[in-house]
Amino acid sequence: MNKDVKEPYLLTPGPLTTSYATKAAMLHDWGSWDDDFNQVTADVRTQLLAMAQAASNEYACVPMQGSGTFAVESALACATDPDGKVLVLTNGAYGKRAAQLLQMMGRRYVTLDKGDYLPPQPNEVAALLQQDPEITAVFLVHCETSSGILNPLEAIAEVVHARGKTLIVDAMSSFGGIPISLSKTPIDVLVSSANKCIEGVPGFGFVIIHKALLEAGKGRAHSLSLDLHAQWAYMERTGQWRFTPPTHTVVAFQAALAQHREEGGVSGRCARYTRNRDALVNGMRALGFSTLLEDEWLSPIITTFLSPADPAFEFNAFYAALKARGFLIYPGKLTEVESFRIGCIGQLGTTVIAELLSAIQNTLAEMGVSLFPGLSSQSGSA
Amino acid sequence: MNKDVKEPYLLTPGPLTTSYATKAAMLHDWGSWDDDFNQVTADVRTQLLAMAQAASNEYACVPMQGSGTFAVESALACATDPDGKVLVLTNGAYGKRAAQLLQMMGRRYVTLDKGDYLPPQPNEVAALLQQDPEITAVFLVHCETSSGILNPLEAIAEVVHARGKTLIVDAMSSFGGIPISLSKTPIDVLVSSANKCIEGVPGFGFVIIHKALLEAGKGRAHSLSLDLHAQWAYMERTGQWRFTPPTHTVVAFQAALAQHREEGGVSGRCARYTRNRDALVNGMRALGFSTLLEDEWLSPIITTFLSPADPAFEFNAFYAALKARGFLIYPGKLTEVESFRIGCIGQLGTTVIAELLSAIQNTLAEMGVSLFPGLSSQSGSA
Repeated sequence: MNKDVKEPYLLTPGPLTTSYATKAAMLHDWGSWDDDFNQVTADVRTQLLAMAQAASNEYACVPMQGSGTFAVESALACATDPDGKVLVLTNGAYGKRAAQLLQMMGRRYVTLDKGDYLPPQPNEVAALLQQDPEITAVFLVHCETSSGILNPLEAIAEVVHARGKTLIVDAMSSFGGIPISLSKTPIDVLVSSANKCIEGVPGFGFVIIHKALLEAGKGRAHSLSLDLHAQWAYMERTGQWRFTPPTHTVVAFQAALAQHREEGGVSGRCARYTRNRDALVNGMRALGFSTLLEDEWLSPIITTFLSPADPAFEFNAFYAALKARGFLIYPGKLTEVESFRIGCIGQLGTTVIAELLSAIQNTLAEMGVSLFPGLSSQSGSA
Repeated sequence: MNKDVKEPYLLTPGPLTTSYATKAAMLHDWGSWDDDFNQVTADVRTQLLAMAQAASNEYACVPMQGSGTFAVESALACATDPDGKVLVLTNGAYGKRAAQLLQMMGRRYVTLDKGDYLPPQPNEVAALLQQDPEITAVFLVHCETSSGILNPLEAIAEVVHARGKTLIVDAMSSFGGIPISLSKTPIDVLVSSANKCIEGVPGFGFVIIHKALLEAGKGRAHSLSLDLHAQWAYMERTGQWRFTPPTHTVVAFQAALAQHREEGGVSGRCARYTRNRDALVNGMRALGFSTLLEDEWLSPIITTFLSPADPAFEFNAFYAALKARGFLIYPGKLTEVESFRIGCIGQLGTTVIAELLSAIQNTLAEMGVSLFPGLSSQSGSA
């Protein structure tokens, strides 16, 4: 991987480090209306339904051009009843963004805001659904990368399903890397993106959605470009995307899907990401860092570490020094404490994590940062 | 070009055949928030303003994820006054689409519909602006690829400007291939896309827009993802795209811009496309085909040819036979007559056009199609 050039590893929630084979799939041009490309689109849609264990007679997979947020916007516009009300579960930026999307499209919503990193609890959701019968749908972010927390999807899905409400899941950063089965877990709408755990390049997202909701969504869209029902209807009729697709990105995604299968599918990928996360968390703790979250809530996608209290630590300098050593990490997104994030996903394994830990240790020494109060911050072997 | 694999030439209005160098630029991964990528974005925006001859103190270039329609939608939402009225000049699918966009976002509009291929005339526009003082903006498609017509942009711009109205130009298929100067022609908003005459790969569009209109567009958007003002404000503040950009597509576009410069900029590219168009039209006429449009209205982008009257001609078989010979052409989009289209843009020159003409001649012979009534349709040398 990255065999032809030395470039930094992207230790982020995506865009991430992709394989050379995935990128090399972009070395050809495709006619966006031609049968050859239509077959790629059809294959990708079929594979995504299978990955979600979603029955193809019940669910459809509809890709949408743009970033993941474009796909979430199109899904919310299609799948939420303009006369209904959505309960948005938020504990980070992406829950808040869903609320903002609903606000802009004039759909009613209430939020259960758990702050920066606490998980929404199934009994809280149950109580809110009980209290407010006007609620017709619930929106949950599976892995909220703002903190890295893995929210309790299955338990919340049961609660929502038991009360007959629609569940819309932002699985942007988890789908393909963490098992999700629509045949076991009652999820009505799942949204994800090309450039996350399936390890494609950015350019489109996709929505796996119950066909009854797609049908009901006809005419609901607030935007021509982001009309999910129209995209689906056109694609079913012609095999083509409604407007020009990011052809190269789609073909790269098909290559990424083949590698995903070769690695053992979701379970194989989850195992590698989990090994990465364990090596990272153990190594960082050995260096003296603390994770924001307790182990129970750590995802194998991205982990938030608290910034050292030592005033010698300054994030921008830390970032630049790690970049010079070949690693791009991610700034924090918490409102209350100083932090930074390191991702575990993309085309990399524990060897890269070990190199990263060594680079972090050397960088801290260079910066004169002490992580263990009472010890001196001298560099060298500890 | 296409040196590593035999693949068909895309003789279409885009996605088109791009250079190997453009595609090879996608062989690296980029952090979408990192300074290195921000510099690519800034460079691309600066180069596009320069290509449009738009003063950077007056105009801004704002890229938008998705297809060209996504960019048009974001531009219309930002640049049209919710209390105003838009005159949409239509003579094909893209003018109609603009009207549909305005309809969906609840903006008032009237159309001057010239049918399938007649150009809107400046005096007609002047009369309409005179009659209806509520009109605040005019929308024009520069090259309407439905027919291939090049609409009279400069003359209409003068009329619109003289009456103090806003001119919004869909220059999707012309910008970069046909000279447009915002310092000479009064255009307030120009929309184009990565995968047209600049010969990038598809994944984003861009809007060149007067800053006063951007400022006025704050809060007007109907969509969070397609909020042009918010994209601009965020980009100005952080250097980053507001939501995940199609990183590889953007970097490929920067490579395509370098090749555009090397070819002599817009005039160099326009000269090549014009040579392609002339070779195509002359060659097709020599074979017995007729163009839909008179020479005056032919663009150097794409040309519509009338389907032969001979019942032996069937478009799908013609398409498949040309594809087998390495050329993808484009179906017609006219409502009244049978036709097909052939593009002149992308990484190809008159050698490829000559090969195409030979392939067309052989295909017609194989199909037994006679273009000259009275002559027999026997194959072989004529």
